[in-house]
Amino acid sequence: MDNIGNRLDGISFPSDLKHLSAAEMTELAAQLRQFMIESVSHNPGHLGANLGVVELAIALHHVFDTPDDKIIWDVGHQAYAHKILTGRKNEFHTNRKHGGLSGFPSLSESEYDAFGTGHSSTSISAALGIAIAAKLKNEHRQVIAVIGDGSLTGGMAFEALNHAGAERANMLVILNDNNIAIDPNVGALKEYLTDITTSRTYNKLKREVWNVMHRHTRSRKVIQRIERGIKSMLMKQGNLFEALGFRYFGPVDGHDIAYLTRVLQDMKRIEGPKLLHVLTVKGKGYEFAEKDQTRWHAPGMFNKETGELIRTATDKSQPPLYQEVFGQTLMQLAEMNERIVGITPAMSTGCSMGHLMHRFPRRFFDVGIAEQHAVTFAAGLAVSGMIPFCNIYSSFLQRGYDQVIHDVALQKLPVVLCIDRAGLVGEDGATHHGAYDLAYLRLIPGVVISAPMNETELRHLMYTAQTGNCGPFAIRYPKGYGISPEWEAPFLALPVGKGRIIREGEDIGIVSIGTAGNQAVEACCRLERDGIHAAHYDMRFLKPLDEALLHDVFRKHRCLITVEDGTVEGGLGSAVLEFAAEHHYSASVQRLGIPDRFVAHGTIAELQCECGYNAEGIVSVAKQMLQRNAL
Amino acid sequence: MDNIGNRLDGISFPSDLKHLSAAEMTELAAQLRQFMIESVSHNPGHLGANLGVVELAIALHHVFDTPDDKIIWDVGHQAYAHKILTGRKNEFHTNRKHGGLSGFPSLSESEYDAFGTGHSSTSISAALGIAIAAKLKNEHRQVIAVIGDGSLTGGMAFEALNHAGAERANMLVILNDNNIAIDPNVGALKEYLTDITTSRTYNKLKREVWNVMHRHTRSRKVIQRIERGIKSMLMKQGNLFEALGFRYFGPVDGHDIAYLTRVLQDMKRIEGPKLLHVLTVKGKGYEFAEKDQTRWHAPGMFNKETGELIRTATDKSQPPLYQEVFGQTLMQLAEMNERIVGITPAMSTGCSMGHLMHRFPRRFFDVGIAEQHAVTFAAGLAVSGMIPFCNIYSSFLQRGYDQVIHDVALQKLPVVLCIDRAGLVGEDGATHHGAYDLAYLRLIPGVVISAPMNETELRHLMYTAQTGNCGPFAIRYPKGYGISPEWEAPFLALPVGKGRIIREGEDIGIVSIGTAGNQAVEACCRLERDGIHAAHYDMRFLKPLDEALLHDVFRKHRCLITVEDGTVEGGLGSAVLEFAAEHHYSASVQRLGIPDRFVAHGTIAELQCECGYNAEGIVSVAKQMLQRNAL
Repeated sequence: MDNIGNRLDGISFPSDLKHLSAAEMTELAAQLRQFMIESVSHNPGHLGANLGVVELAIALHHVFDTPDDKIIWDVGHQAYAHKILTGRKNEFHTNRKHGGLSGFPSLSESEYDAFGTGHSSTSISAALGIAIAAKLKNEHRQVIAVIGDGSLTGGMAFEALNHAGAERANMLVILNDNNIAIDPNVGALKEYLTDITTSRTYNKLKREVWNVMHRHTRSRKVIQRIERGIKSMLMKQGNLFEALGFRYFGPVDGHDIAYLTRVLQDMKRIEGPKLLHVLTVKGKGYEFAEKDQTRWHAPGMFNKETGELIRTATDKSQPPLYQEVFGQTLMQLAEMNERIVGITPAMSTGCSMGHLMHRFPRRFFDVGIAEQHAVTFAAGLAVSGMIPFCNIYSSFLQRGYDQVIHDVALQKLPVVLCIDRAGLVGEDGATHHGAYDLAYLRLIPGVVISAPMNETELRHLMYTAQTGNCGPFAIRYPKGYGISPEWEAPFLALPVGKGRIIREGEDIGIVSIGTAGNQAVEACCRLERDGIHAAHYDMRFLKPLDEALLHDVFRKHRCLITVEDGTVEGGLGSAVLEFAAEHHYSASVQRLGIPDRFVAHGTIAELQCECGYNAEGIVSVAKQMLQRNAL
Repeated sequence: MDNIGNRLDGISFPSDLKHLSAAEMTELAAQLRQFMIESVSHNPGHLGANLGVVELAIALHHVFDTPDDKIIWDVGHQAYAHKILTGRKNEFHTNRKHGGLSGFPSLSESEYDAFGTGHSSTSISAALGIAIAAKLKNEHRQVIAVIGDGSLTGGMAFEALNHAGAERANMLVILNDNNIAIDPNVGALKEYLTDITTSRTYNKLKREVWNVMHRHTRSRKVIQRIERGIKSMLMKQGNLFEALGFRYFGPVDGHDIAYLTRVLQDMKRIEGPKLLHVLTVKGKGYEFAEKDQTRWHAPGMFNKETGELIRTATDKSQPPLYQEVFGQTLMQLAEMNERIVGITPAMSTGCSMGHLMHRFPRRFFDVGIAEQHAVTFAAGLAVSGMIPFCNIYSSFLQRGYDQVIHDVALQKLPVVLCIDRAGLVGEDGATHHGAYDLAYLRLIPGVVISAPMNETELRHLMYTAQTGNCGPFAIRYPKGYGISPEWEAPFLALPVGKGRIIREGEDIGIVSIGTAGNQAVEACCRLERDGIHAAHYDMRFLKPLDEALLHDVFRKHRCLITVEDGTVEGGLGSAVLEFAAEHHYSASVQRLGIPDRFVAHGTIAELQCECGYNAEGIVSVAKQMLQRNAL
């Protein structure tokens, strides 16, 4: 093992790679894999995608002159090898930790990170911008976008290909084709890529031509020449990427580092837009990860020898994941109401829509990484009388924002927007925090916006959403565990636009929405211990706002705190202030939530503390307000 | 002319079309064209696109059983013939007028409008949703999406094709290929479509095969059979749409109504996803419109005999269009600063980027209808030291929202977001009002948000945006004319985050942003006449907010009105309330702007009046506030 480790020990920066032979790079790849497996086994992160591109990352840094040449890693959760090879090996143990390395490429972290990523399908656009800038500035540099076959289903990748092909910009797109995103990739494009890689089309055409020829000529030479002509034309002209103005090369084995470096060297010499189709295996080189690619996408802690995942026990006495409650509840509702269908843009495992998929496969739709389409597809179903539960992570719904306004809300269609990963998400960091949904949805007319305080409420809200025809109905809930093991209470229809009183108290009022309310519960207990009697109101609905309840709140209190797991610019706090202004209330209102800056990564608890809306933060603000009010 | 008109007179609903012969439908098409030209000549609307699909609309309603069968018109500005044929002929003179017909298909207007449109590239997603719902409900209906070649460059159309091809849903996509959006279509896809329609690939392959064959066989029969085989395989397997799982048919002449109806009849009998490639001419049948397709997209009033456009005089004594000021200024700045480039998603004429295009063609980028890509492409340019002025209409920037957050703001990149058509846009109505940008941008950390009160200020803000490195810099301005013919003042760098005092006054304070401030100016004059002394502050910047100025405002006034040409949920008014809450000011604040509902179409003046933030509305609210305060 010592010997094996030595190769990696000698590598700190890409310059250390330049003179390695193919055999030495192959050796390095094995060590890099071991290093990552070891590290991720006790400091959780993304694994499968990173194991799949080890050879590619080495080959790229061997062949290209980074950081002058620019590599953009689409999504970026596969950039660990890149990070380790570009000066961050010794810090890699801080990956995704508060104050440590980001789990994604980041402009501010390293000059080798040419463009920050996190959301899918941005790399070709960014690469094109960088390539065009180089052209305008007469700088000679190579620009490479590495994009997975899953990310290629995102519409903006297509927009970028369409533009880049016409611009004839000097750039290389590497299609990292492993047939899987987080869940197995879906869509016609996937089938097309399989078609290319297995040469099905060519073989079929060859067969047909052969049949005709065979009857008319016996000349092998004629037949072979025609075959060759057809093959080259088909590859060149009949290819999807060639249709979009890219020269297409491949497919090549992404784990054959010798061949890969040779091909990349060739690519350097070819001007214009080109696409290299590289076949990789997600989880490559780690048996367990190769076998169950979805589970090993981001496995959490595990025993690297046995492949055993180390989970906190999931027995009945533990509260469930919100995701699990969502998935189970959706399936149960679908059993009761045949108009319900489920839609996910490539996150069926992440959002637990697998339950519906197995129970009602015809009513489950994984549309690929395609949030725009997901929303309008849902609108199309809704206009035909179905009730689509469209589950999109909060930060990814930003991709479908226009569609929510233009196709759903404007037409008052009963689409249930199930917004997962709302609020701070923890280790994934700034690109993934669901910080904005409450605020960006609130300004859309006619959308019901709700947020459950716990998993039972999530069930009730989901039930409520499919009972009446309320038009668009958003339910936002966080990543992670709920608060009670007993969540499977009978369904209850909640009155839309009505909040509830959690606790009475005369000293100060706390108004919360969603799971941040649990911090308020804790804060009230602590305040009580100090003799301060706080009232607590769970709004449940940000829109329509419970005005009756708010009149009550403002009549009772001179000091109010609003608490939300979302930005304080334009969210619940602002809604409360708008209400107060309209009704001429003059209580002091302090808004707590995510402040007006980008929050980095760390545990959710660390970040909520940093943002000041955990129980401790609420207590401290309450005391300050009361002190000021007493003056 | 009497005779000619009779055919159209007999048509009120699609049922009246069913028994017409091809010759009769051709006659009807001519009359329908005359009817539209006559109507649009004095009641402005979209012309070119509507003239291009007359035969298609007739053929569709002849062949399909609407409203049971569903036709979705992508973008929808080409749906006039459809509207006239589906019960709205007699109301067509109210098109786009306040209280009249919408210029776009609308669910609430007619059962024949299967899905409301306005923004590009939504039709395939909606059609797929409707088709899948029909399948789930065992309803047999045809679903047709009519989409232009320009709209096909929008990424969500690709997302939808990718999903639909895999779902094998029973739907027909009609590609209305006229080689132009509003401006000529751009991108690799356009070239590809030209390639198909001119059979360049097939001809090349045929030539090559012919060369080989010729040397080896003299049998015409062999050669012909091989040619046929290759052609059918190329069309089937090498086709972009076939690659995405669609059966491809065409191209066919979209003005040959006899052939078109026959082909559509055939389409009805073919199961699964299929695409019919129809070639049309934008402006067809009206010489002037065919010759200058961009100008005649939406020409305003015109003399239908001479083709003369009836414009209000554009002499030097008239204030200019904001668009013209933008276009001229951008070109001037680009002359001074070589780092500046211009980006437009297919709106170069609409936003007047033609000036830059002609002066610096290498620094001008029309990226197609691709807002997502436009923003991230701009980010890629900015990360490489360029200063991209990315011009996107307010309601279309909703498409690039995630990219503004994730690619621009998070990375603090100096992209200048030039947000045209901000605020109420008038006749285009609910889908096109730029009602939300102030509010949806405000919640993003680190974005400078500005809005000029007039065209000189627009120039200064554009100049300011490219002087320092402020990170993301948004400038939003409205559609239409400015207020002063003398707009070409020397450039002035404005202090970022600083507002200005327009008028002093002690009775009430009016705080405005952007061109809505001109309504406030007028309101102040009227109030003055009634002896009320109003102060008026132009914030210029929504973010960062001028806190020093606001402290001043709150110290001076007990009554404040905020005025903005945007939603009152989360915009300037909310920002002012948040400021007041933070600093414990208790003045009465009344927010004026676009209310929390979707506003329909009409003139801008009519709609601002309806929304209550024109001068009259401000005066009336000011008097109410003062009255209430006096009690």
